[in-house]
Amino acid sequence: MQNRTGVPAYAKRTTLAAAAALALAFAGAPAIAADTATSHQTASQAGGQTAITAATRFVEANGIRYAYRRFGKPGKLPLVFNQHFTGNLDNWDPAVLDGLAKDREVIIFDNAGVGASTGDVPTTFAGMATNAEAFIDALGLKKVDLLGFSIGGMIAQQITLDRPELINKLILVGTAPRNMDAGGGQGHLTPETAAIFTAKYDPPENLWLKVFFTDSESSQAAGRAFLKRYFSRTKDRDQAVSDKVAPAQMAAVGEWGDHPGERFAYLKDIKQPTLVVSGTHDTIVYTVNSLYLVQNLPNAKLVLYPDASHGAWYQYSSDFIAQVNSFLK
Amino acid sequence: MQNRTGVPAYAKRTTLAAAAALALAFAGAPAIAADTATSHQTASQAGGQTAITAATRFVEANGIRYAYRRFGKPGKLPLVFNQHFTGNLDNWDPAVLDGLAKDREVIIFDNAGVGASTGDVPTTFAGMATNAEAFIDALGLKKVDLLGFSIGGMIAQQITLDRPELINKLILVGTAPRNMDAGGGQGHLTPETAAIFTAKYDPPENLWLKVFFTDSESSQAAGRAFLKRYFSRTKDRDQAVSDKVAPAQMAAVGEWGDHPGERFAYLKDIKQPTLVVSGTHDTIVYTVNSLYLVQNLPNAKLVLYPDASHGAWYQYSSDFIAQVNSFLK
Repeated sequence: MQNRTGVPAYAKRTTLAAAAALALAFAGAPAIAADTATSHQTASQAGGQTAITAATRFVEANGIRYAYRRFGKPGKLPLVFNQHFTGNLDNWDPAVLDGLAKDREVIIFDNAGVGASTGDVPTTFAGMATNAEAFIDALGLKKVDLLGFSIGGMIAQQITLDRPELINKLILVGTAPRNMDAGGGQGHLTPETAAIFTAKYDPPENLWLKVFFTDSESSQAAGRAFLKRYFSRTKDRDQAVSDKVAPAQMAAVGEWGDHPGERFAYLKDIKQPTLVVSGTHDTIVYTVNSLYLVQNLPNAKLVLYPDASHGAWYQYSSDFIAQVNSFLK
Repeated sequence: MQNRTGVPAYAKRTTLAAAAALALAFAGAPAIAADTATSHQTASQAGGQTAITAATRFVEANGIRYAYRRFGKPGKLPLVFNQHFTGNLDNWDPAVLDGLAKDREVIIFDNAGVGASTGDVPTTFAGMATNAEAFIDALGLKKVDLLGFSIGGMIAQQITLDRPELINKLILVGTAPRNMDAGGGQGHLTPETAAIFTAKYDPPENLWLKVFFTDSESSQAAGRAFLKRYFSRTKDRDQAVSDKVAPAQMAAVGEWGDHPGERFAYLKDIKQPTLVVSGTHDTIVYTVNSLYLVQNLPNAKLVLYPDASHGAWYQYSSDFIAQVNSFLK
């Protein structure tokens, strides 16, 4: 399948970045909480918070000030989330965060150069992984469970390869290994990704109905419910991502897809128990990549949800939470 | 990959059948219980039974006498099991049957010509489906949940197509759609299947360690635990399958694989919610076929277990039972 416009998506970085920035314009005002607690002890003592109420906090490492939120039930290992393309702190589904926070602390953060975090977005996932590791270290954490969604799953793979002692278990959602199958799309973006991100939406947030959900009535209904949850945080929303984010993240996708050497061989070095999740019809990161992951990772379980695309875990949040609770216990 | 011997597996039917018969010789003495209750009311009142103690019963339909066992907690729809290649009543994992029977009745049966059931084994899954439907009808059941394992999953697909009003939900384990991917193996059997079933094992039941489990230490340990469970029924074991079973079932696999027309198009007519389960490394029915199923069935969820082959659901029986309980609730 080709990009609808016939123009290679990768050659249209500016347009894509503009579309992404437009789509994210509704992320709300960049009001940041004054609370800049940097120790995890302080953060973890703030009980009773939710995805809607948890304050945005900050921690510094290597000259970068990282924005993050941390909430949930202390005791077990915290679960650290790595965000998708052009996503910031507000792009996670509150239903998933709050569901998982009942049994553990969840930590979401803006990687360097994203949202309210300072610094530049590297043009490789290796660079983004290094920054994520600095963030986790700055919280004083010695062992965490790690989740990555979409390009966040690529960063999560790299973090686990870099710092195996830091990662207990790994959850990869809607993501792909290096040298993935993107249907021959330019820059290793699927043709559907290019088409979806360059189209116009009214209202603009309807972009996410196309990115995360299938065209079926029931999936679109799940999408509208997701958008309601998405907008339910009205105070202390994150800063919109700058127009530098999308081009750098797309360059990283290109580098990830171009990886030379034996295909998927590097996955044997990720020995952590891994849960891989996607939809049966993910058009943003093709579902077959989830099969490649579990067939090449030494210890990986796969769950694919029906009639679901890139946002499968948002469409089936209750089941996803149960799967994760079973996997992490 | 080619058959180790270089001889097409399909041309070696006699050898394969002999190997299968040999492997199944340990199924034990053909002692059949005198209890020949034919009504499901009678059977379902027999509480407290297990996979080890449930009596073998009989019911007649269309001139065939079907051997079956039925036990578990009455109330919900019963779950009817369709067995794998050359398997009889004793080839199910007691851990799975008893785990599922805590929440519903389970019904296992020998299809026509298999084990203690009379009649001939048809050479197509369509024929086997017709016989299975006659069995379910003979029990007076108007609606059931249906499970099929391996070739039993092919029969289960056909039953659901034939009689959609009879089937509530469908569970397909280690199976494949028509026109499946068998790695170019003769007769649509994978090269590994041919090699595994024609090899010699000492003791013979170690065949199942190769069929159902990977070569890893932990998977083989799970296999040995499975064999212990497998042998734990010592009284009223089923009759060994005759040497007519394997050739007919292999012919049916060939016909299933040869299906003409648009690949996988027929799956859109199976509208029941479906749970598809396999291992990440199923060498008997390649794992990719599970992806084909969930990508072409309208409403299908996939679970793949790590470091697992054709017997993934036996290796992860507790997780499988939880998945099924969640799916059928």
